[in-house]
Amino acid sequence: MYARLEDVIGCKWSVSVLHAVGAGTRRPGALEREITGISTKVLSERLRKLTHYGLLEREAFPELPPRTEYALTEAGRRLVEIIEQIQRLDSQLQTTTPGGRDAKRA
Amino acid sequence: MYARLEDVIGCKWSVSVLHAVGAGTRRPGALEREITGISTKVLSERLRKLTHYGLLEREAFPELPPRTEYALTEAGRRLVEIIEQIQRLDSQLQTTTPGGRDAKRA
Repeated sequence: MYARLEDVIGCKWSVSVLHAVGAGTRRPGALEREITGISTKVLSERLRKLTHYGLLEREAFPELPPRTEYALTEAGRRLVEIIEQIQRLDSQLQTTTPGGRDAKRA
Repeated sequence: MYARLEDVIGCKWSVSVLHAVGAGTRRPGALEREITGISTKVLSERLRKLTHYGLLEREAFPELPPRTEYALTEAGRRLVEIIEQIQRLDSQLQTTTPGGRDAKRA
C-alpha cells in the first residue's frame, strides 16, 4: 500500500512534528515545548525517522553549544499538504454524515 | 487528528475496496472475487463502515434475486485521489532515500 508513509500518516506525533517544523519551529527544544505531551525520547525518535524517510533534513551548526535545526524537505512539504487535505475531508465528513459531530449534538 | 479517515487510510482492505469500487466493480460478489484474500465477512464490514462514513453509497434494486450496488460518493472520490497522492509520494520516497528499495538492491 504505502509502506513508509502509512506509519507517518497514522502517527499523531509524526504529524505534529511535521506541522510544527513546517510552521517554522526548527529546533528540538522548541519543538518539545510546542508539541504538548511529547517526550524527549519520542521526539528524537520521530526526528530521526522522519529524516531517515526523507521528509525532514537536519542541519548541525559548528558552534558551542552545538545547534541543530530541522526543515521540511520537498517531500515533507508535499506530505504536509496531503495531511491537510485529509484533515479537511475528515472534518467535512464529521459534519455531513450520520453519527457525525453535529448528529451527536442534536 | 482525523478521527474517521485514519482507520480508512491505514486499512489495506478499506483502501482496496475504495479503489475497486472507484474502478467500476460495484457488486459485493464481484468485489470479493477481485480483492485477493478478502473474506466475505471483512468485505461486508468494510462496505458497511465506508457507507456509514459517507465514502460509499449503497443502492438496492427491487429485483429477485435482490441486487445491491455500491458507488463512491463525492467524498469517496476525493479520498481515492488523496490515497493516490500518498502512493505516488511513497514510491518516490522509496527510490530516493537511503534504505529505499533501490538502496536495498544495491
